[in-house]
Amino acid sequence: MALRKKLAFPKRKKKKSRVHNKMGKAPGTVSYMGNKERSDSTIFNILYNPSGFEQQEFNILDDFLASNRSEKISWVNIVGISDEPFIEQLGKHFNLNPLVLEDIVNTEQRPKIDEYEDYIFGVFKMLYISEEEKVVGEHIALVLLENTVLVFQEVKEDVFNGLRDRITGKLGRIRSRGADYLFFALLDAIVDNYFLVIENLNHRIEQLEDEVYNNPEPEVAKNIQLLKKEILQVRRWIYPVKELISRLIDTENNLIKKDTKLFLRDVQDHTIEINESLQIYREMSMSLMEMYMSNMSNKMNEVMKVLTIMASIFIPLTFIAGIYGMNFEHMPELHYKYGYHAVWAVMIVLFIGMMIYFKKKKWL
Amino acid sequence: MALRKKLAFPKRKKKKSRVHNKMGKAPGTVSYMGNKERSDSTIFNILYNPSGFEQQEFNILDDFLASNRSEKISWVNIVGISDEPFIEQLGKHFNLNPLVLEDIVNTEQRPKIDEYEDYIFGVFKMLYISEEEKVVGEHIALVLLENTVLVFQEVKEDVFNGLRDRITGKLGRIRSRGADYLFFALLDAIVDNYFLVIENLNHRIEQLEDEVYNNPEPEVAKNIQLLKKEILQVRRWIYPVKELISRLIDTENNLIKKDTKLFLRDVQDHTIEINESLQIYREMSMSLMEMYMSNMSNKMNEVMKVLTIMASIFIPLTFIAGIYGMNFEHMPELHYKYGYHAVWAVMIVLFIGMMIYFKKKKWL
Amino acid sequence: MALRKKLAFPKRKKKKSRVHNKMGKAPGTVSYMGNKERSDSTIFNILYNPSGFEQQEFNILDDFLASNRSEKISWVNIVGISDEPFIEQLGKHFNLNPLVLEDIVNTEQRPKIDEYEDYIFGVFKMLYISEEEKVVGEHIALVLLENTVLVFQEVKEDVFNGLRDRITGKLGRIRSRGADYLFFALLDAIVDNYFLVIENLNHRIEQLEDEVYNNPEPEVAKNIQLLKKEILQVRRWIYPVKELISRLIDTENNLIKKDTKLFLRDVQDHTIEINESLQIYREMSMSLMEMYMSNMSNKMNEVMKVLTIMASIFIPLTFIAGIYGMNFEHMPELHYKYGYHAVWAVMIVLFIGMMIYFKKKKWL
Amino acid sequence: MALRKKLAFPKRKKKKSRVHNKMGKAPGTVSYMGNKERSDSTIFNILYNPSGFEQQEFNILDDFLASNRSEKISWVNIVGISDEPFIEQLGKHFNLNPLVLEDIVNTEQRPKIDEYEDYIFGVFKMLYISEEEKVVGEHIALVLLENTVLVFQEVKEDVFNGLRDRITGKLGRIRSRGADYLFFALLDAIVDNYFLVIENLNHRIEQLEDEVYNNPEPEVAKNIQLLKKEILQVRRWIYPVKELISRLIDTENNLIKKDTKLFLRDVQDHTIEINESLQIYREMSMSLMEMYMSNMSNKMNEVMKVLTIMASIFIPLTFIAGIYGMNFEHMPELHYKYGYHAVWAVMIVLFIGMMIYFKKKKWL
Amino acid sequence: MALRKKLAFPKRKKKKSRVHNKMGKAPGTVSYMGNKERSDSTIFNILYNPSGFEQQEFNILDDFLASNRSEKISWVNIVGISDEPFIEQLGKHFNLNPLVLEDIVNTEQRPKIDEYEDYIFGVFKMLYISEEEKVVGEHIALVLLENTVLVFQEVKEDVFNGLRDRITGKLGRIRSRGADYLFFALLDAIVDNYFLVIENLNHRIEQLEDEVYNNPEPEVAKNIQLLKKEILQVRRWIYPVKELISRLIDTENNLIKKDTKLFLRDVQDHTIEINESLQIYREMSMSLMEMYMSNMSNKMNEVMKVLTIMASIFIPLTFIAGIYGMNFEHMPELHYKYGYHAVWAVMIVLFIGMMIYFKKKKWL
Repeated sequence: MALRKKLAFPKRKKKKSRVHNKMGKAPGTVSYMGNKERSDSTIFNILYNPSGFEQQEFNILDDFLASNRSEKISWVNIVGISDEPFIEQLGKHFNLNPLVLEDIVNTEQRPKIDEYEDYIFGVFKMLYISEEEKVVGEHIALVLLENTVLVFQEVKEDVFNGLRDRITGKLGRIRSRGADYLFFALLDAIVDNYFLVIENLNHRIEQLEDEVYNNPEPEVAKNIQLLKKEILQVRRWIYPVKELISRLIDTENNLIKKDTKLFLRDVQDHTIEINESLQIYREMSMSLMEMYMSNMSNKMNEVMKVLTIMASIFIPLTFIAGIYGMNFEHMPELHYKYGYHAVWAVMIVLFIGMMIYFKKKKWL
Repeated sequence: MALRKKLAFPKRKKKKSRVHNKMGKAPGTVSYMGNKERSDSTIFNILYNPSGFEQQEFNILDDFLASNRSEKISWVNIVGISDEPFIEQLGKHFNLNPLVLEDIVNTEQRPKIDEYEDYIFGVFKMLYISEEEKVVGEHIALVLLENTVLVFQEVKEDVFNGLRDRITGKLGRIRSRGADYLFFALLDAIVDNYFLVIENLNHRIEQLEDEVYNNPEPEVAKNIQLLKKEILQVRRWIYPVKELISRLIDTENNLIKKDTKLFLRDVQDHTIEINESLQIYREMSMSLMEMYMSNMSNKMNEVMKVLTIMASIFIPLTFIAGIYGMNFEHMPELHYKYGYHAVWAVMIVLFIGMMIYFKKKKWL
Repeated sequence: MALRKKLAFPKRKKKKSRVHNKMGKAPGTVSYMGNKERSDSTIFNILYNPSGFEQQEFNILDDFLASNRSEKISWVNIVGISDEPFIEQLGKHFNLNPLVLEDIVNTEQRPKIDEYEDYIFGVFKMLYISEEEKVVGEHIALVLLENTVLVFQEVKEDVFNGLRDRITGKLGRIRSRGADYLFFALLDAIVDNYFLVIENLNHRIEQLEDEVYNNPEPEVAKNIQLLKKEILQVRRWIYPVKELISRLIDTENNLIKKDTKLFLRDVQDHTIEINESLQIYREMSMSLMEMYMSNMSNKMNEVMKVLTIMASIFIPLTFIAGIYGMNFEHMPELHYKYGYHAVWAVMIVLFIGMMIYFKKKKWL
Repeated sequence: MALRKKLAFPKRKKKKSRVHNKMGKAPGTVSYMGNKERSDSTIFNILYNPSGFEQQEFNILDDFLASNRSEKISWVNIVGISDEPFIEQLGKHFNLNPLVLEDIVNTEQRPKIDEYEDYIFGVFKMLYISEEEKVVGEHIALVLLENTVLVFQEVKEDVFNGLRDRITGKLGRIRSRGADYLFFALLDAIVDNYFLVIENLNHRIEQLEDEVYNNPEPEVAKNIQLLKKEILQVRRWIYPVKELISRLIDTENNLIKKDTKLFLRDVQDHTIEINESLQIYREMSMSLMEMYMSNMSNKMNEVMKVLTIMASIFIPLTFIAGIYGMNFEHMPELHYKYGYHAVWAVMIVLFIGMMIYFKKKKWL
Repeated sequence: MALRKKLAFPKRKKKKSRVHNKMGKAPGTVSYMGNKERSDSTIFNILYNPSGFEQQEFNILDDFLASNRSEKISWVNIVGISDEPFIEQLGKHFNLNPLVLEDIVNTEQRPKIDEYEDYIFGVFKMLYISEEEKVVGEHIALVLLENTVLVFQEVKEDVFNGLRDRITGKLGRIRSRGADYLFFALLDAIVDNYFLVIENLNHRIEQLEDEVYNNPEPEVAKNIQLLKKEILQVRRWIYPVKELISRLIDTENNLIKKDTKLFLRDVQDHTIEINESLQIYREMSMSLMEMYMSNMSNKMNEVMKVLTIMASIFIPLTFIAGIYGMNFEHMPELHYKYGYHAVWAVMIVLFIGMMIYFKKKKWL
């Protein structure tokens, strides 16, 4: 029996500690918190109105700021948020509060929506399944202005591809609607993506269920534990979204029109559904551990039965053999002609009796 | 002892993933989400007023739209929701919001009630016990209009048979009341049906209780686990209904008259009762697992007692036999005339002593 | 060791399924749901005012309806609710809503209070300890009218005896007060009776505690499980009452006078106390199972210790005996004069050493 | 190994059952519920104003009622509540509601505060640690009138000694303030006393923690169970107090002045703190049981390791000895000169190999 | 196998019991509750306005009170709170309520914020990781006055160093803002420091996870238990802060300006995040114990398998050897030429068969 392998939990990447990075700094200080390498920011801008659209890419901020964006809805996608002066300049241009800028680059920020007079600011997590089958959360920040939606991402991801196609291909009603509808559509794309994660978690629970039954190794317990932690983590990222969206629906801010709220209600429905699923998965992952323990007990039971059966049968037989192995001078049986055969007979009867007993107890 | 059977969880039917089907599509896109084969839709229409009733069946939508339904209450039962253009045309006729149409064909939609100015829209689950004794949820969508109730189903089910009989047979007050009472009556029929499911769950819990006591096989643990999952699933389908109906009762929408609300309060009572039952079943299913574990321990205890008794009795006796099996030249006992008999006597005394000890400990 | 007895859960009496009985019927249909044999209803009527009282018994409904009850408070006790036309006629006389009549004969109805314009209607459970020491819930329905309280029971029970004595004996304030005070007094009698049930549950928990410690048989686990289920069931019957009474206290209905509400507050206090007790019993019954499991482990530990001690002592000694039972030609020890005694000495030393070791480990 | 002692739970003193005592009586009936022997009541009265104070003791009620208490704050301490006519006469003098009198002598009453027009009535539990280290709750009732506070106790306790000293010694602001401040000060003394109980519970948890680690006997499990029950009981007595005091703070009753409410806020803080502690103790007592179970498993593991090591080492060696104890005619090894030594060598090698194996597995 | 070490829980420092210290004293009595040695208080005062700043240190209270602090924002840091007359005199100077002074020196006070007309008073816990890697909470009291913030600490700690640097170095907007912003900044510094504690707890959970897998000693269970207790304790200190800050945000007190509330919202976000983390750690620490138990079971399983394999293989073989060790006169096998070899052959076949059986069962 090989020594049990060391089951080290996968080490997390050491990230710059939030605390040491921020402590003592004034609130509103824009300082990037992520663990991506610092790189330049790029702006992908889509301008559209019912009659047409335009796609632009800027590597230099001043070019973007100088461009004419009036009279069109503008979806400004900023990829790369580690360049703090860039973000600060952009923020000044759009007149954003320093606290907003701080949250834009704070990749550890939990989901939130803050309403200001001229804009609505939101932070969310886009969730992906990494190659090692783990759920990864990417920080994303949205700002809804009069005719513009700013989207801040660390890396360019394809969650919004479908949305982009709808604008460029004139599918759906999106081109004939305002920036608030774009804001909704972005939210909708983010939340729809959560279903992928939910499906993945469901799949892994089913897999673990199979393993618990057929192969309850210590690794399985470890994986259940890891799954539990991931569900807790995902829940933390997704859970607040429901509340945030319902606050958006109740807002009296003019930036969001009444018929867009109807659509937001739809997104809210989805977040409720996702949260319910997470709740169920959480209970199921707890049951899984219980099942694992019960299967461990089952296996132990089986091991003990084998031991008990072997010992109960052969220890008495060995005792009988021991009796006639004694060297007393006066042991009449030893001299009987069929003594040896008689002993065998007794032993076979005992053996069969034992077998019947264990059969009756259903241990065999 | 046979190798333990592989206990695979029943594989669910692979359904078209909601995510891949919907991602990137605009909200309000009508696309069927169910896993039934696509088929044509049929409309069963019942027109009635206090003085009489009429039953109609339409396979062609235009025929239905052209028919005269004014001055009567109209119960329009649409069976088959996979024909999207059909649904869209019908929706346009009744002036329904695209988001409503999307939910009508979205068989994964959780229960909801949305109020619009001219109509009230609701999605529910009709629950059935399948042939494999599992709870199955069928998607059903209701729309309450001025004098009309639209009912969208995937397959024609008989939950509403009693209701149909009451209209055609002029039992109950139903023919002399409005569309809102019909809407209530449909809801009532759906909720009454939940009691069947509740009874089935109760029955299965009792069955598992018996099995846990008399035959705690690993299969039983698996079945408890499956039951738990089903209760969680059913709860998810039923739980929101209570809240939805109480919102209907509080609504100020004119479509629902005050004395119909009295009846809705009755339905609400039923949903509360059902939810309480589910809550109790959930706690009982958790206790079941505990009982299973305790019975496993009991069995282990029994196994260990057999082993301990056999070993404790025969190991010392074998030791004594071993002593006199030694080949020392100078072993005076071996030459005693009654040495052999004395050893037997000692062994029998020991055996009886042991038996008394174990009896006292209540292990026998 | 005898085979473990089959521990069948007591089968519940098969009752007419609520579902099959009611499905498809119109709401407001009066159909008896209980499992008592159908029998005629009897009316016991007590009329009283400050100056006197009168007791009447009617077997024919029309006699009762024709009797003069004006200018007195009338406590109408209807025993037997399986005669549906009887109930319907009575209901029509007092102008009760069909939904109320439906609930009066629905013995499965959960506790509720519904206020109507001219009357207040309540359903409760009277709890009794059956002869098999189980808690049984009897359906009771109360209707408070202007000067009359209607009480519907399945069987005549003596919960109200004390109250009857107070009226006939002119104890307490009851004769000088209105129908609302009678309604309160009936409620008070029902709730006071709950304390009997609470005491019985407490007693059984204490009994199970003793058994868990002194005799943790599988039967005890079963009884804990049954107790848990009963507590859940009782809680379901009692829990809503608190909320119902506090709604009565807050009502603006003129049927209940302000100083009667002071008394209702007292009943509410009792229901809070009862619910707290039930909550504590629930936690204690869960702890009981834990204790049972821990005692099982204790017993297992003890069994294993006996085995380990016996085996650890005698297996090495048997090995030594085995050594000198070998038949090698050249075994010098066999020829030593005191070889045999030396072996005994070694074995005794070993034995004592083992005993000391186990003493130190506190296994003995 | 001695038979396990019977672990009987300490029997509670049989108290007069509340139910049998009260059932059928009218509400407002003053009947003593405690389990103290009936004795006469004594009145200790302290009269004070900013300029002085006076202490009086009355054994005869009429003397007290006749005494002049106007123009001073009067703290009337009634010790002994089993004399029902005494209480009723006193109640009539101060114009108290019969329901209030009923609660004053009902020693089972849960904590409550009821506001009446002319007075505020409260019931609380004073908690003590009994000599057997158990928490005991004494019933205490307070009535705040215009210039008087009535305190009803079963036995004279010293919780209020500090307060009495403050009045007689003119410490604190108490003499220059009204009856509402006295009421607050009494409450404060009661709640401060809860900290003693909290400390005692904390101490016992720490003691049990030590025992769980060093001596996990079945008695420890029993003590954990008893502690759990006591925490539940104490929580029941203390928990409502927080809510009651916050209702006092929000009251619009003129009996309590605005600046006394500031002090009540302080008491409320204490009750919150106490409830938090109880909550933590509850969780810790649950963890204790878990720890106990884990230590049981540890011990079982240790027992099994000893058995496994002994058996694994000596069973194979005994087998080898058995081989050469066979009596075959043709066993060449038996005739080798060093056969015996060779067997010893093999056995020693095996023994050492086993020891190394078990060392590696860390079982030794 | 060494006897298991005694695992004593670390004894807490005996602190002066709150209860005995306070009981019987009037509320508003200023009496130090901490366990630091009494020492003199020192006042560190920072005066600043947009154009400059000044740092002062006072050991004599009168000097401080005489100093001119008008027209500047004043941050008064009082270090050392055990000198009660000092605190009382200071309190009188700033016109603080005696209850406030009592809470300032009550180091056991739970976090609170009380609003008075002229000032806002708050108590918090600053959390540190002690050298023994335990979380320690230091009592801190803040008072926000018109242009002054009073900070009361037991020992001078460096949490506020960053803030001090921002004032003296004119970083951030702090110098140009009012006392309310200073109050916020102090709160922010305290809450930011909580992240250090959170990180430490996270680190310890990960460490325990590794130990549970690789080295599940009883010490690990003890450490999990200790961690659980610490999380409960930390939660108690941190949890109320969220609620307190949200009350500050909703306050209508003029002391806190509207744009400072924007910053408070940021602090509130942090407290929510911290509480979520604590919640997750709590669940994870409970899972840890489960994992520990499951690993204990795993180890037990392994031990039992070794025992079962050794016993199952060698007990039958020993039996066979025992057979041919019998001394019957008539045992034909003993005289066969190859009898001995045949027995060996049988035994080897049995051995191999057993090995295959156990391989199949995956016990090897």
